[in-house]
Order: sequence, then C-alpha cells, then structure tokens
Amino acid sequence: MSGTTIRLHCPLPSDDGSVVLLGHGSGGRMTADLIRRIFLPALSNPALDRLNDNAELRASGVRLVFTTDAFVVSPLRFPGGDLGSIAVNGTINDLAVSGAHPLGLSAAFILEEGFPLDELRTLVDSMQRAARGAGVDIVTADTKVVERGKADGVFITTSGVGLVPDGVDLDPTRAQPGDAILVSGPIGDHGIAVLSAREGLRFDTTVVSDCAALHTLVAAMLASGGAIRCLRDPTRGGVATALNELAGSSRVEMLIDEPAIPVRNGVRAACEMLGLDPLYVACEGRLVGVVAAADAERVLAAMHAHPLGSEAHRIGTVYGQAAPRVLLRTTLGTTRILDVLSGAQLPRIC
Amino acid sequence: MSGTTIRLHCPLPSDDGSVVLLGHGSGGRMTADLIRRIFLPALSNPALDRLNDNAELRASGVRLVFTTDAFVVSPLRFPGGDLGSIAVNGTINDLAVSGAHPLGLSAAFILEEGFPLDELRTLVDSMQRAARGAGVDIVTADTKVVERGKADGVFITTSGVGLVPDGVDLDPTRAQPGDAILVSGPIGDHGIAVLSAREGLRFDTTVVSDCAALHTLVAAMLASGGAIRCLRDPTRGGVATALNELAGSSRVEMLIDEPAIPVRNGVRAACEMLGLDPLYVACEGRLVGVVAAADAERVLAAMHAHPLGSEAHRIGTVYGQAAPRVLLRTTLGTTRILDVLSGAQLPRIC
Repeated sequence: MSGTTIRLHCPLPSDDGSVVLLGHGSGGRMTADLIRRIFLPALSNPALDRLNDNAELRASGVRLVFTTDAFVVSPLRFPGGDLGSIAVNGTINDLAVSGAHPLGLSAAFILEEGFPLDELRTLVDSMQRAARGAGVDIVTADTKVVERGKADGVFITTSGVGLVPDGVDLDPTRAQPGDAILVSGPIGDHGIAVLSAREGLRFDTTVVSDCAALHTLVAAMLASGGAIRCLRDPTRGGVATALNELAGSSRVEMLIDEPAIPVRNGVRAACEMLGLDPLYVACEGRLVGVVAAADAERVLAAMHAHPLGSEAHRIGTVYGQAAPRVLLRTTLGTTRILDVLSGAQLPRIC
Repeated sequence: MSGTTIRLHCPLPSDDGSVVLLGHGSGGRMTADLIRRIFLPALSNPALDRLNDNAELRASGVRLVFTTDAFVVSPLRFPGGDLGSIAVNGTINDLAVSGAHPLGLSAAFILEEGFPLDELRTLVDSMQRAARGAGVDIVTADTKVVERGKADGVFITTSGVGLVPDGVDLDPTRAQPGDAILVSGPIGDHGIAVLSAREGLRFDTTVVSDCAALHTLVAAMLASGGAIRCLRDPTRGGVATALNELAGSSRVEMLIDEPAIPVRNGVRAACEMLGLDPLYVACEGRLVGVVAAADAERVLAAMHAHPLGSEAHRIGTVYGQAAPRVLLRTTLGTTRILDVLSGAQLPRIC
C-alpha cells in the first residue's frame, strides 16, 4: 500500500437532524431513518411500505416488478467496472432477487456542463456491453444538463421492469426457522475496489469489483426445484444490512457463522488495514438467499454450476422467531449481534 | 418588471464538440445531436430507436409503456409547482401521450449533503399531493447522497409504467395529410413561471406554471370516439419542437396558424421583453394532438369539457408529405419554417 492519506468519512458528529448527511445515503440505519422520517409519512402505500428493493405491479393478471436506483459512484471507473456497468447490473439485480425476468431498462442521465463527451461515450458503451451481456435492452432514456459545479460529471438513474414467472414468490417475509442461509460468493470486492480506485490505494493484489447481473444465476437456482424463500443483493450496507432486512421482514432470528463467509485475501487485508468490516462492504454481483434446509445442497449445486455462483457457501441458519435480528458466531467462537450499518462507512460506492 | 439583470444562457460559441454543454439538455437540436452521436450508436434497439418519450414493452400479451425523466429544475419552487409536482406530473404525461393508464411510478433522489430536511419534506409532500391527485402511487424509491458542491440541492428522477388499453394506438408515426392539429391550452406558462422565479422577474400578472397530469384528459379524448392519431406533451423545446418531432416521425408537413395558438397575455409580454418565442417555451400540463379532421370538433368538445382542456384550440393542419417539416403562418400573413430549438433557450426548466 502506498503512503496515501485515507479520507474515510465520519459524518455523525455534525448531525443535528436538520440537514442531509452523507450517511443518509449509506443504505444503513441513517437511510432507514430518513425513509421513516420523510418518505414513508408522505408517500405511504402498500407497495412502497414493504421497503423492498422493488415493487410488484399487477396488470391484467400479469405480475410485474418495478425498481429504480440512482448511481453516483466516484470515481467513475474502478477495477472490474464503471458507472455504466453498475447502473445496468445494479438495476437488473433488484429485479432478479424477485425471480423476475427483466423486460427492459430505462436510463436517465444528469450531466455536468463541461463533462467530456469521450468519457460519456465510454460509459454508454459500457452500459451497452452490460445490457447486451445480460440480454436486456435499455429501451427509453432521458438527458438533462446542469451548470458547471452543480453536479459531479455524470449521474445515471436506471429503472427496470421485470416479469415474475408463474409460481415464483420470493417475498422477503418468507424466511422460516430452520432455513439455510447462502451467499453466492466472496463478499466486499466491489466496495474495496471502488475505495482503492478513489483513494489511490495499492495492495499486493488488485481487488476487482464483483459487478455482474445475477438474473441467470437466480433462474438456475429456481430451476433446481429447491424451495427458495427469499433473496437479496447485499449492496450498500453489505451482507450484514441485507440479512437484517430479511430478518426484519420475515420476523426471524438468523445465526451467521463468520468462518463460513467467503472473503478474498485482498479484501480481508484491505479491510484490516482500513478498519473496515467486510460484512458491511458493498457487493454488486452477489446475493444472499434463504432456502429450505432440506434443499440447501441442491440449490448450492445449481449455484456452483453457474459462473457467478461457483464460490457459493452456506453461511448460516434461520433459527428462531424470538426477535428479528442477526447473530454472528465469530471466528473466536463468541456470538454477538450483527447490526445494520450506522453512518456512511463508504460513501458513493454505487 | 424589476431592474434585475437577466442571465440567459448562450452556450453555442464555446462548442468545439468535445464536452457537454447546457444546450445538450435543451430538448432541441443539440439534444438530438447528442442522442445521435453518443446514445444511439451504442444503445440502438427497436424500442429506443423510435426516440419516443416512452417505450412499449410486451409481457404475456399485455401492452405496457415505460418512461423515465430526470428533473433538475432550478429554482426548486416556482409559481404553480415545484420539483416534486413536476417530477410526478412530467412522468405521468409521458405515459399519458401513449393513451396509457399509469400503473405506478418510481422516484430516485440524488441529495446534496447539507440540503435541509424540511425542504426535502416539502418536496416529498408535494410529490404525494400530485400522485394522489392523479390517482397513481410512487411504489418504489431510492436515495443517494453526494458531498457538498457535487449536486445542487436535490435532483429527482421518476420513471413510470403504464398499461395501454386494448385498441389504443397513438404511435407518433400516425399523422396523415388532412388531419387537424390541436393544442390543449395556452402555451409557455411553465417555462416563463420558472424563469421568472429564477431571475426574480416581476410582471403585472404572475405567470403560473401549467404543471398538471394529463392522463384523465387523454382518457376523455379517447372516450370521445374520435380518431386520435398521436399526442405529445410539449416540454423542453416547446410546441415547435414537439410538432417537429411528430412531423418527423410521421414524415408529414404541418401548417400551424400562429394567431390560433393560445398564449396568455403575461406569457406574451414576458416573451417580448426577454426576446423569447412562446412556441419554444416549455409547457408541463399541455399536449398537442393530431386528430382526423372529421373528428376534430368532437375531440375538442371532449377537451373543453375537461378542466385541463377548457382552452383547447385547433392550431393547424397536416397538409402534405413533401418533406417532414413544420410551417408557421404568422400573424403578419407570411409563412416560414418553424424549426426545432437550437441551443438552450431556458436551461433547467424541468
């Protein structure tokens, strides 16, 4: 690692509750507070109140899912991806965790005056490579421009519409005591890849983002015939926050076995050096899943046969309904509560 | 009018073709150039290539439309609306011009660190009032935060999904020689309202934005039974640009009668003072429509019976297929080509 100064944000001290802080975009507790204080009181409706990463819409008996995400990642390029690829894959994944087949994506660009058109072309090409790789089209788009200093180069908001196949129900309320908890591969690669690019950090091995579209992995898992209860992609807030969200929705307790969680050496080393916990570092091409225990091996086998699930592991068990929370059995053998992320550990990683 | 200095943007001189300019967000010729140079070569697919304000998706025999728009209006509040109401109504209107029934909206917020939460609450409340008034829910949302100085308070991107009723086809290619051209009400109110708020201009009468959701007006027009060929909401680039887009898609010539175009006195006075042409000033609650001539009176009667169409007028005729263009017969009796907007007459009005 070079001698760079590392600027990790510590936004909490200035919070008097009156203004937006970076932590409100973390995906963790502050984001949840903002949603509860500002968004839900005004916008409340059954679809939104579920606080899922997508909403189900019904049209003439057809089950659709609909999702949106703004992408403000900085820097625009990082090992393994860029703003364009993450904008496509991130939205596909928010459809995929419902088991949906993506029908089409939209893209809305907010450009800062003076942004180089060559860089824009590179990002748009990257979006198209990601979209073509996933077999999904960007079918509608919009472009706005703001004055210099009023944005940061480019922001891209993508939305997606997907079709949920008959018989598929991956509602996050469906986890049950006894179920197995799986993760599709090593965690934290994306967050560390972006942080390294942003801060100019060098490690012995370059950490490459896991940024990928997961809908074909989900289709393979469903095709295994195993009883899959629910899935989530652990982006902002990481695996810890994703599991807490599922535990909260299903009102179950989860026990996660820390030594079973796959973490690459480069991510582990970076996290130790930077004082980060990989369980809170974002992935952009991984999912966590809750599966009937009896079917766990069958679903894992289907995952292992897919390129994006070849390092899938069982990492825990749903074991009670005492309180909706997640417990971690650490490598030391102790057990502690694994809470949602507080504040903004890594701003602008997606 | 007060003695304020008026800062109208003139972005053309600095264009060496290498960077984004404000005019690229104008909705006029420069936006079209950007789309042709950057977006279409990469993203080309049949739905996007139509360059409509929405895309049709088919799912199990159901016809859906899907649309997205980023809203970067400055200032956040203006007479008759704010960023919240325009974000809801603008996206509903992009569904409405296909004759679609809106099924749900998404909202993605990009917030600048330090933005007052009270202001955010006001905008979200406004979104909900607009959504409730339109009978449409915001079913899914996302929030990102960027550092101070990296955005301008708040940007909102909304997307929408709508269901197209059986038998409805308002494809912009359907205008035919002989058809009548209608406008649903006075034009340019929105653009002048935003400009006045931004520049602190005062006129004898306050110009109030026409910002409104048009789907019930469109439903009333369809219910009249008249043969409606196509509709468009004249936002960025105004009525002139919207008509040029329809003329181009249908490959027809249009003749517009300038004295027939409804323009409020306040808008006319402001345009004269500022050197603007109301035909290029954005509306956010108006539509232009092409209708079979024999049915024009019937459709106009249905519009007049609706609060948002009470000042609808016939403004012109589709009269030939020589070349896709729009001609204007002026108040002086001369005829000239009415071109699309060049550059950025009024940046950040939506």
